[in-house]
Amino acid sequence: MTTPDLTTLRRTVADLHAELVRYDLVVWTAGNVSGRVPGEDLFVIKPSGVSYDELTPENMVVCDLDGNLVEGEHSPSSDTAAHAYVYRNMPDVGGVVHTHSTYASAWAARGEAIPCVLTAMADEFGGEIPVGPFALIGDDSIGQGIVETLKGHRSKAVLMQNHGVFSIGKDAKAAVKAAVMCEDVARTVHVARQLGDPLPIAQDDIDRLYDRYQNVYGQRSPR
Amino acid sequence: MTTPDLTTLRRTVADLHAELVRYDLVVWTAGNVSGRVPGEDLFVIKPSGVSYDELTPENMVVCDLDGNLVEGEHSPSSDTAAHAYVYRNMPDVGGVVHTHSTYASAWAARGEAIPCVLTAMADEFGGEIPVGPFALIGDDSIGQGIVETLKGHRSKAVLMQNHGVFSIGKDAKAAVKAAVMCEDVARTVHVARQLGDPLPIAQDDIDRLYDRYQNVYGQRSPR
Amino acid sequence: MTTPDLTTLRRTVADLHAELVRYDLVVWTAGNVSGRVPGEDLFVIKPSGVSYDELTPENMVVCDLDGNLVEGEHSPSSDTAAHAYVYRNMPDVGGVVHTHSTYASAWAARGEAIPCVLTAMADEFGGEIPVGPFALIGDDSIGQGIVETLKGHRSKAVLMQNHGVFSIGKDAKAAVKAAVMCEDVARTVHVARQLGDPLPIAQDDIDRLYDRYQNVYGQRSPR
Amino acid sequence: MTTPDLTTLRRTVADLHAELVRYDLVVWTAGNVSGRVPGEDLFVIKPSGVSYDELTPENMVVCDLDGNLVEGEHSPSSDTAAHAYVYRNMPDVGGVVHTHSTYASAWAARGEAIPCVLTAMADEFGGEIPVGPFALIGDDSIGQGIVETLKGHRSKAVLMQNHGVFSIGKDAKAAVKAAVMCEDVARTVHVARQLGDPLPIAQDDIDRLYDRYQNVYGQRSPR
Repeated sequence: MTTPDLTTLRRTVADLHAELVRYDLVVWTAGNVSGRVPGEDLFVIKPSGVSYDELTPENMVVCDLDGNLVEGEHSPSSDTAAHAYVYRNMPDVGGVVHTHSTYASAWAARGEAIPCVLTAMADEFGGEIPVGPFALIGDDSIGQGIVETLKGHRSKAVLMQNHGVFSIGKDAKAAVKAAVMCEDVARTVHVARQLGDPLPIAQDDIDRLYDRYQNVYGQRSPR
Repeated sequence: MTTPDLTTLRRTVADLHAELVRYDLVVWTAGNVSGRVPGEDLFVIKPSGVSYDELTPENMVVCDLDGNLVEGEHSPSSDTAAHAYVYRNMPDVGGVVHTHSTYASAWAARGEAIPCVLTAMADEFGGEIPVGPFALIGDDSIGQGIVETLKGHRSKAVLMQNHGVFSIGKDAKAAVKAAVMCEDVARTVHVARQLGDPLPIAQDDIDRLYDRYQNVYGQRSPR
Repeated sequence: MTTPDLTTLRRTVADLHAELVRYDLVVWTAGNVSGRVPGEDLFVIKPSGVSYDELTPENMVVCDLDGNLVEGEHSPSSDTAAHAYVYRNMPDVGGVVHTHSTYASAWAARGEAIPCVLTAMADEFGGEIPVGPFALIGDDSIGQGIVETLKGHRSKAVLMQNHGVFSIGKDAKAAVKAAVMCEDVARTVHVARQLGDPLPIAQDDIDRLYDRYQNVYGQRSPR
Repeated sequence: MTTPDLTTLRRTVADLHAELVRYDLVVWTAGNVSGRVPGEDLFVIKPSGVSYDELTPENMVVCDLDGNLVEGEHSPSSDTAAHAYVYRNMPDVGGVVHTHSTYASAWAARGEAIPCVLTAMADEFGGEIPVGPFALIGDDSIGQGIVETLKGHRSKAVLMQNHGVFSIGKDAKAAVKAAVMCEDVARTVHVARQLGDPLPIAQDDIDRLYDRYQNVYGQRSPR
């Protein structure tokens, strides 16, 4: 790959962590963003245990798709194996995000999917946000749980039981958007449920909303 | 219209989005403000899919009252048709705001009006904040739901079922204020209800509060 | 009074509004701080309908103890009559604050006093935070409700039914502190109650905590 | 000790209070951080009643392990006796933090331990976060309650009944991290419990997570 591309991606991935902070999805060092290097079997990810204030393009690390460190002075995020497994097994995925955001993690602690009762949720996720299995860190269990849950599912986010959220996207920014929207709908549906049952949205309407949003929304020309 | 007026309105509408951010009414790009151009069948609205940090007077777009793009390099907000319908059918409305703010959207997800149990709510809304119908994006359904619910109602905000809030005002700033106050009372009444039943306010008292606030509050001279 | 004193008080009162913003006690223009002018039958208060960003020492207004405007280009806060009544009837009070802070207003909407189940609450308030009557704006009803509830009570804050909080202190800063602490304990006790019954604190222990805090805490020399 | 070391520690302790503010663990002046002076029977702690905006390396105070003021122009924090007791009785502790953070204090108000239902909680705390006794300020009761609860416990944080949180660590930064993580898991488990029962994590899995996190996580080389 050309050096300018990697420099840009390092900056993009470093900067996107600020969105996790801005939307209160993370505390201390507990969440991470990665982005696939276009045309290479590599991805850029947050270094482990480094605070969000200290992230720079330079201290991002580069790993291969087995999660091995290829470039960087720090250890990669402790969640690197899960990111790597997703990139190995979902070739269309260009970005992965992991957080312990409060409301999504609360649904995950109960092992309960978030029902699709908001039009914004139909737009972005096309239905419920599903729950993945309980899995320990240390091997490919988390990665497998993510991929088995999300393959063939419209949702770009999965609630890993008793753990937190993994989200995916065509690039790192899209995965961050999915993480932000996941927490937003997790919170709104939680608040709705506290005082009664939200009204369901018919599957047909969910389908129409999802189709329209994926195909029409936003600026048509690349920015 | 004179160019200075439109320049000012572009700036006002762009800047008012910062209030949606400040009061946590929006995430990512999911809310929008518009303002009617005085004396013209036009309004200024947020471009679609552009982040709040990037909004400037220059990238705001101008639409006619059928929602067609008249001026601007970006596509107008995907909610433009709803704004346009309101301007076409409510001639006194000079500003429209749309958000998915958490607590108001939670009431909307249950299809439940917010009861008027706070004096600040009587001041601003003159009674309950009503629920509008479930409506899909893509034609005039949302705009019709807003207008049918708010015409002849004191409330300047409507909870669109399973969706979010639309608020109106004599100008864009007043509509933003209504959106801010709607979320504030939605949250306070939600919190009150979590531990029991709020005490009702007598209709007579609601009427007195509303009348006084609409006629007396604030600086009398224009600012 | 000397001009330097009034200039200082104008600055103090203007600046203290930033604490209401910092601790999320207010939205838009819905809360206000006032401070008694030492040695004069006057107080400095926020102008009505002016946003917190625009407050300066110069646009604060000065009123007499009947709430009449004495100095200033703006109208005084619409809550001025309540502030004035407190100053007229509680000569030791040097500062008054009014907010619609979320959790305190939620207790107020249910007409329920906040029970003293936190040591920080025993420290600052010496027991429960009481509820005052429902009262309409426009005459001395609100002021009377505040004074009747707080006279002879240890609490420096009162939850006015269906309305919000008024707090008092020896000066404006102390009243702001009481408003901040009131919302903090209102929130914590609310959250505690959501999942069960908080444990009571024995009255003897409340008395000891209150006595110690009022007499020992903080820097002994004036700052 | 050398002057450079103490200067550094004063700055570290002063600066770490900004993390309490950033994560909304404190209001007004109600929380404090201390750090043990390496190789000396001394610790650096926040002055009493001074706002977080005004903290500087210079106005931090130094106390001996009986809590007596050794150096500084201000009185030490009113919680100094509890910090001192911990340093006297837990020689491996290099930092202590005290807050009244909302969700942790809510569990404390009910006298209820936070169950370990999140992998992040297993990582950091190795099990539940326990409750310590109700204790009055003024003697060693609070310190004794902290030490008796935490000695031999994996948790680095204790919920003091009807009061708030004390956390410990190998240094001041680690104690601050424990305070931040304690509030984070207190909030997430609270939210989870509002709508049902969180799923338990098997003790074996908790043990594996704790062991791995304590030994593997973060950068291996000192930073």
